[in-house]
Amino acid sequence: MPTLVIANKLYSSWSLRPWILLRQLGIPFEEVLIPLDQPDTKARILALSPGGTVPILIDEGATVWESAAIMDYAHERWPEAGVWPKDRIARAVARSVSGEMHAGFRGLRAACPMNLGKVFAARDRGPDVERDVDRITAIWRDARKRFGAGGPFLFGAFSAADAMFAPVVTRFISYSIPVDPDTRHYMDAVIGTAAFQEWKDAALKETWVVAHDEPDEPVVTDLRPNRPGKT
Amino acid sequence: MPTLVIANKLYSSWSLRPWILLRQLGIPFEEVLIPLDQPDTKARILALSPGGTVPILIDEGATVWESAAIMDYAHERWPEAGVWPKDRIARAVARSVSGEMHAGFRGLRAACPMNLGKVFAARDRGPDVERDVDRITAIWRDARKRFGAGGPFLFGAFSAADAMFAPVVTRFISYSIPVDPDTRHYMDAVIGTAAFQEWKDAALKETWVVAHDEPDEPVVTDLRPNRPGKT
Ligand SMILES: N[C@@H](CCC(=O)N[C@@H](CS)C(=O)NCC(=O)O)C(=O)O
Ligand SMILES: N[C@@H](CCC(=O)N[C@@H](CS)C(=O)NCC(=O)O)C(=O)O
Repeated sequence: MPTLVIANKLYSSWSLRPWILLRQLGIPFEEVLIPLDQPDTKARILALSPGGTVPILIDEGATVWESAAIMDYAHERWPEAGVWPKDRIARAVARSVSGEMHAGFRGLRAACPMNLGKVFAARDRGPDVERDVDRITAIWRDARKRFGAGGPFLFGAFSAADAMFAPVVTRFISYSIPVDPDTRHYMDAVIGTAAFQEWKDAALKETWVVAHDEPDEPVVTDLRPNRPGKT
Repeated sequence: MPTLVIANKLYSSWSLRPWILLRQLGIPFEEVLIPLDQPDTKARILALSPGGTVPILIDEGATVWESAAIMDYAHERWPEAGVWPKDRIARAVARSVSGEMHAGFRGLRAACPMNLGKVFAARDRGPDVERDVDRITAIWRDARKRFGAGGPFLFGAFSAADAMFAPVVTRFISYSIPVDPDTRHYMDAVIGTAAFQEWKDAALKETWVVAHDEPDEPVVTDLRPNRPGKT
């Protein structure tokens, strides 16, 4: 059985990507969780992968790291699972927009770290975040318009592209970023998946606090009121 | 015939990646070059791809952008060409290290923009660059040790992984970054490819100047002494 190595479910946006993909597509795997920011975190990750980051997939003698590489590995390993869209033109676009996510959107990522435990008040977060939000919502709108006929997701059925953007969906919610109804409809489909619900339930039971993923901003809702990390 | 849209050969590191891959593997394509930093650059790119960046591959009704997505598209489109290594474990590692390149090494990328026209003097470029250089040379060393038996490249034969790192090879040279002999051996193999020579010859004939890719540093060698951009 493949092993997927991840970090804290509350905070680790890169871990969420392959985890939600494999889980939602019904691919069985064992999970190993290495909490971030502990004295032995780096050593534990480096013992498994020279890249020094999670996620890591270990499967039949292969070690794959980097979320995008794990997805392409999974596409070849489980060709019937639907990792990428079946149609070649849709697949080309799915890979392109996932590549944009993998390499970019640094404004949003820096200003709005993933934190599933809190909803922060809306505020102006500057032009870099605004540019990223505009491009991301355009990606979602265009993909669904061109390829989304078969379901609520970007390319109809749930695929690696939705997995790549799942942490962005959670950021839009956590940071109260205003979106149009159609965008919200897509976001609800992602957070409504059984896989995301399972991830989030586990996240909210965690007690680790990663300080730099706890922005000092007014909190609208604290989803773990009796746990550490409360402001 | 597929069309590959690129930017200036002297400066555009992302363009070099799929270009050298397709050319070195003998996959025919037409080239369209959109020079950077002109009044109409953004409009010309956006007319071809919503991502707003080059490279872009246009092929049989598909438009693919992001260098990593283009490589995976090429792998499926020309399965015999050898885009990724044939062995599944080597392929997993090739994709992982290419993912590291696609998403990371921002220290090196920011401090040392690709510029094929100049060799700058060696200097201490700070801990971020040093960390990136150390990780990159470790990637090269480990890949060649584990998978490089069949040739001078990371996985033996030239593959997408070498293409992903080709602009880094040029940066190590342009910025006089000290490397061990074994690393230099690999770098020489990359710059010695027919495809790279063809790219570089064309680059040195270009006359456009992109100011932010012309660092204000002492120049050891100016490879275009009679052209603009000379310091
Ligand atoms: N580009 C990488 C990013 C991975 C990443 O940054 N992971 C973080 C956790 S979300 C990590 O492993 N941090 C541990 C550390 O740096 O010690 C990917 O796509 O997998
Ligand atoms: N992550 C992208 C990066 C592409 C990129 O940044 N391309 C630059 C040229 S090297 C570009 O198109 N710049 C044009 C612009 O921003 O107007 C990829 O892998 O293709």
